[in-house]
Amino acid sequence: MSEVNRVWRLRKRPVGDITDDVLSFADESLPEPRQGEFLFRLNYLSLDPTNRIWMSDMPQYMPPVALDAPMRGVVCGTVVKSHHPDYTEGAIVSGFGVWADYQIGTPETVSPMGDTTPVAVVDAFSTFAVVGPTAYFGLLDIGEPKKGETVVVSAAAGAVGSIVGQIAKIKGCRVVGLAGTNEKCAWIQNDLGFDVAINYRTADVPAALAAACPDGIDVYFDNVAGEILDACLTLMNLKGRIPTCGLIAQYNATEPVPGPYNYAMILMRRLRVEGFIILDYSERHPEAVAALGQWMAEGKIKVRTEIVDGLENALQTLRKLYTGANTGKLMIRV
Amino acid sequence: MSEVNRVWRLRKRPVGDITDDVLSFADESLPEPRQGEFLFRLNYLSLDPTNRIWMSDMPQYMPPVALDAPMRGVVCGTVVKSHHPDYTEGAIVSGFGVWADYQIGTPETVSPMGDTTPVAVVDAFSTFAVVGPTAYFGLLDIGEPKKGETVVVSAAAGAVGSIVGQIAKIKGCRVVGLAGTNEKCAWIQNDLGFDVAINYRTADVPAALAAACPDGIDVYFDNVAGEILDACLTLMNLKGRIPTCGLIAQYNATEPVPGPYNYAMILMRRLRVEGFIILDYSERHPEAVAALGQWMAEGKIKVRTEIVDGLENALQTLRKLYTGANTGKLMIRV
Repeated sequence: MSEVNRVWRLRKRPVGDITDDVLSFADESLPEPRQGEFLFRLNYLSLDPTNRIWMSDMPQYMPPVALDAPMRGVVCGTVVKSHHPDYTEGAIVSGFGVWADYQIGTPETVSPMGDTTPVAVVDAFSTFAVVGPTAYFGLLDIGEPKKGETVVVSAAAGAVGSIVGQIAKIKGCRVVGLAGTNEKCAWIQNDLGFDVAINYRTADVPAALAAACPDGIDVYFDNVAGEILDACLTLMNLKGRIPTCGLIAQYNATEPVPGPYNYAMILMRRLRVEGFIILDYSERHPEAVAALGQWMAEGKIKVRTEIVDGLENALQTLRKLYTGANTGKLMIRV
Repeated sequence: MSEVNRVWRLRKRPVGDITDDVLSFADESLPEPRQGEFLFRLNYLSLDPTNRIWMSDMPQYMPPVALDAPMRGVVCGTVVKSHHPDYTEGAIVSGFGVWADYQIGTPETVSPMGDTTPVAVVDAFSTFAVVGPTAYFGLLDIGEPKKGETVVVSAAAGAVGSIVGQIAKIKGCRVVGLAGTNEKCAWIQNDLGFDVAINYRTADVPAALAAACPDGIDVYFDNVAGEILDACLTLMNLKGRIPTCGLIAQYNATEPVPGPYNYAMILMRRLRVEGFIILDYSERHPEAVAALGQWMAEGKIKVRTEIVDGLENALQTLRKLYTGANTGKLMIRV
């Protein structure tokens, strides 16, 4: 075990882009677990769009990270020292932690990953910890797609969006995805089986969506808000559903961001717009893991994980999420 | 029966306020009912905020009124000539019709009012035709208020809002209403039993709402959108519900209207925003009428109807809805 613990700490709230001075990265001493706690070594750090929310002090679904506190993250690690009988040395755990080589865990913050068969630990962490269940519950519970309906998903080559589209295909829907490069579009259409992929950076989005959705949109899985939400609103069918999963288009905004200009469509088409986060579904987590694991084993769901080595690269890698520079799940390997 | 039929026709789409040249009012000859149709004489014409939507060509929940066609309205009339066995002369009917002294009805457009006991025909038409069931289903089905929760309603002295607040009181909720004059606020608080009334024209709305809702907002029944919606969004509790019934604040807008600036709260607080219109509940109409009739007979729901005489006054009276100049249900008596 190293004597040095590298820790990322939040030093200021980001304004606009996440600049270098928002976080600090420095050596610290190792923390000491107390009774009922354990120390674990970071193996993988998940980078997620919501990290930007936690850095800010906007109203949010968990307390924001306190200034000068270690940056929060979804983590996978190995227990190296334990004062808890259920967490023995060598156990693999995942859950909420911090951006640091070594950190304290409790049963309230992380859980044993247990048997991840039929997928590797890295895929289990990548897919089962957050993004897979997010896609599963958001699409199925909030979106309620029915066979033959049209499902549109934004950030469709992202970690959540790529799984949403594949589950919608499993459910017999027509699936249209929006992504920001031709390579991403080719991936979701050719490898993942989306019916149509639209490059939102080069296409006339309203026209392309209208062409791709000749029967309108029944479910729009919203990861971005902004102009794509507005374009979808005009095409929503009566009683359409909009699970609100993310607002990437506005996380880095420095001015108040107006809501959708076509908000009136919620009334005109009697739409249901509903926000959700995966924390609301913790009791049903095993249900999502079982379904996703089976679909992955059957080859019906493919995941792509972009792994960057080195905790020191966490900040510059995180920025990729807000510029569309990554495909699939983005993680740091330590 | 008169030989002359006065008819309001839509001549142009309104831009901003509904100016005099939007509608024409002129004498025409009486229409002749064909087999399966009947002719009825207008007794009451309901004036509703949604009339402005029907005049426009914005996306909407029914086809807009065609240019040069008679203006659409919710009407109550008496059958004067019938070629349909179920609609005899003298029968009172209500439903969708036009702004005209005499008009053709069919079973698809209007229904017999039948026995309106325990309330008078005018109250039955005023409350049971549209606004009462709108309040009933919007609040109970979409809002799902639970005893002890806080319900906020905008346009609270309006026809729908005043009933929403009273139903919420019956269900054991804390009820806060927003209205535009001190007289309206006094009426909803002193006569209708709202816990708090806020004059949105004179109050600091966000501060007044925060003070009136110390436990946050569980249901915001939205009749107006705009700044009041934004203020409510910041106070919504986790899993709060926002039935979207109207958008009065933006019906007369001439520029694109941004959605709520606090749209992100839908995600952060996992809110459900859901549009509805009463047409979706036509099969359950008797349920609402039975409940409302009983509450009215028991004195638990009071309604106020502002009746203006003369079909010729329809246009200038309609404008009251968009300036907050009326209280309760607004109708024309012919």
